[in-house]
Amino acid sequence: MEERADKGLAFMLQYENVAWYENGEVRILDRRVYPRRVEFVTCRTHGEVAQALTDMVTQSTGPFTAAAMGMALAAYECRDKTAAEQLSYLEGAMYTISHARPTTVGRMQLITGGCLEAAKAALAAGESAVDAIMAHTIRSNNRRYNKVGEIAKYLVNMFPDNGTVMTQCFSETILGQMLKECRNRNKTIRLFCPETRPYFQGARLTATVCHDMGFDVTVITDNMPAFVMEKEHVDVFTCAADAICCDGYVVNKVGTFQIAIVAKNMGIPMFVSGVPDKGHPTHDDVRIEMRDPSFTLQAMGVKTAADGVKGYYPAFDMTPPSLVSGIVTDLGIYSPYDLHRYLENSQLGPYEMVV
Amino acid sequence: MEERADKGLAFMLQYENVAWYENGEVRILDRRVYPRRVEFVTCRTHGEVAQALTDMVTQSTGPFTAAAMGMALAAYECRDKTAAEQLSYLEGAMYTISHARPTTVGRMQLITGGCLEAAKAALAAGESAVDAIMAHTIRSNNRRYNKVGEIAKYLVNMFPDNGTVMTQCFSETILGQMLKECRNRNKTIRLFCPETRPYFQGARLTATVCHDMGFDVTVITDNMPAFVMEKEHVDVFTCAADAICCDGYVVNKVGTFQIAIVAKNMGIPMFVSGVPDKGHPTHDDVRIEMRDPSFTLQAMGVKTAADGVKGYYPAFDMTPPSLVSGIVTDLGIYSPYDLHRYLENSQLGPYEMVV
Repeated sequence: MEERADKGLAFMLQYENVAWYENGEVRILDRRVYPRRVEFVTCRTHGEVAQALTDMVTQSTGPFTAAAMGMALAAYECRDKTAAEQLSYLEGAMYTISHARPTTVGRMQLITGGCLEAAKAALAAGESAVDAIMAHTIRSNNRRYNKVGEIAKYLVNMFPDNGTVMTQCFSETILGQMLKECRNRNKTIRLFCPETRPYFQGARLTATVCHDMGFDVTVITDNMPAFVMEKEHVDVFTCAADAICCDGYVVNKVGTFQIAIVAKNMGIPMFVSGVPDKGHPTHDDVRIEMRDPSFTLQAMGVKTAADGVKGYYPAFDMTPPSLVSGIVTDLGIYSPYDLHRYLENSQLGPYEMVV
Repeated sequence: MEERADKGLAFMLQYENVAWYENGEVRILDRRVYPRRVEFVTCRTHGEVAQALTDMVTQSTGPFTAAAMGMALAAYECRDKTAAEQLSYLEGAMYTISHARPTTVGRMQLITGGCLEAAKAALAAGESAVDAIMAHTIRSNNRRYNKVGEIAKYLVNMFPDNGTVMTQCFSETILGQMLKECRNRNKTIRLFCPETRPYFQGARLTATVCHDMGFDVTVITDNMPAFVMEKEHVDVFTCAADAICCDGYVVNKVGTFQIAIVAKNMGIPMFVSGVPDKGHPTHDDVRIEMRDPSFTLQAMGVKTAADGVKGYYPAFDMTPPSLVSGIVTDLGIYSPYDLHRYLENSQLGPYEMVV
């Protein structure tokens, strides 16, 4: 089991494999085809990294590591310019990379802004911006992983022994840390993962990690959560979030909202891992990304509908705080209506984020 | 538009194309590959017809026509035996065909029982059982289609002009009649069809019929109904049923239950077309068919999950009457709590059914 767990962790949870800069290239694990094929997209400019993010080569927290690696690549691209020119170039790269997908601009600005600050300090000291960005990213990823480890402890407290947990989409770091925490405590859980159309992240990614880490995991289609909640005694519904607004609204993969409604209807608690996003003081300014509608007219690349039928593809939806039992942060579980208290208690630096 | 409509009707709504007996063979339209390919499964014994039903070659009301055709084929198989032997053979065929899928045994017994009665009368008069079964089936299908036309009138009354309607799965006859009724009244509606995993009946069948009949139709994945109901002003959620229990519980394609919960949560009415099934006085004896679990680990034949991950496939779920706004019958719209009144008012013969 340890070996399988390591295999799963190696591929899906370690950022060196998710996205990495080396010798003028960023290699990003192509999660669109994982686990059927293990392939990497190679980017030779930061513009190509931004394009890869737009094209959803990587998802969950993968884009944040990829964005930092894109900044390292941008620093490499402009390494022969003057320090002032390099900073200007990096500011441009920060804009390009942060705007690759509309819903995560704020968090991407935190990541790329931290890289820019690291580069500034290095250039002022006559050092390499590339090295500084890499060192900064490794440090901040490690810090982030540790904080996610804290989240996992609070989250796993909510699982009964031999409990049944339903997930939604793919939550990468927190998923791996949550399962590690279960193993550390010898807490057995079984998992039901909705497949998460149209990209199947639940079937392809979440279920693979759960299985590789030795857990009993079942994939269901996205029309089955209510049936499973009723018949299989689901104890907890849990997911991460693409953004947690400070007013308690949770932006996550489309489908989260309806599972939340069903869970509430059945008296099943919903716990969302993550911390409030200062970039979204309320949910009013959240812009839900509408992606290529043709994606709902195919499955795994095979056409499903006749010509002339329309598609429709909101990448995310928004769950109101009234459906959320708790936001599981690194500092404990907060009511979604009380997130200002987390922000008061948290010691996050200006460019730091937890998940 | 008329031509397209006729094309759609010809293939999907006329029972001659759904399933038909001729010259010792039953040909069944293979809806598993429609509309990408128009192919028929040819059955040369009634056992092969039962197997085709088990394998879901046809769905919705297709199985009922196929079952009757299977009885005609059984009568052909035993045509050279004595009348008593033929009846005994047909009783065996009735059992085999009715039990092809566990959730619809009762309604299949109505269909095949009607065929058996027709054969009995013919054999007593020294006439061909095959011809009698075919004549009986054509008569009862025509009667059924007319009754569904009545249902469609009541259902379309519930749609506002320029309204938005969400469907679930594929409801064949009622879908076609409902759209014809809209056209007759010049009532414009647009439709959102959840794709209905794992078989994609919504994407492949419902959406094709809507489009072929000239309506604006959008396919969404099964995790999007809540988003669409909130953002696209859905006026009505409607579906048919595999069984409507006399206590108001509705058995239909898995996913119906959770859309019903979401619709109720959002104040959107849910109308179910069909009539109460005397075979299910209460929902207690409903057995939900659990199909091959590996079906949730693939999409359109392409594997989605890693080896070792489990699948899970309930074909149906059950929606309680508290979520249903009305059962739309050929005699009007009934409260799901008041279905005994329909049964009192209805003039259905012992082997007759409406949908």
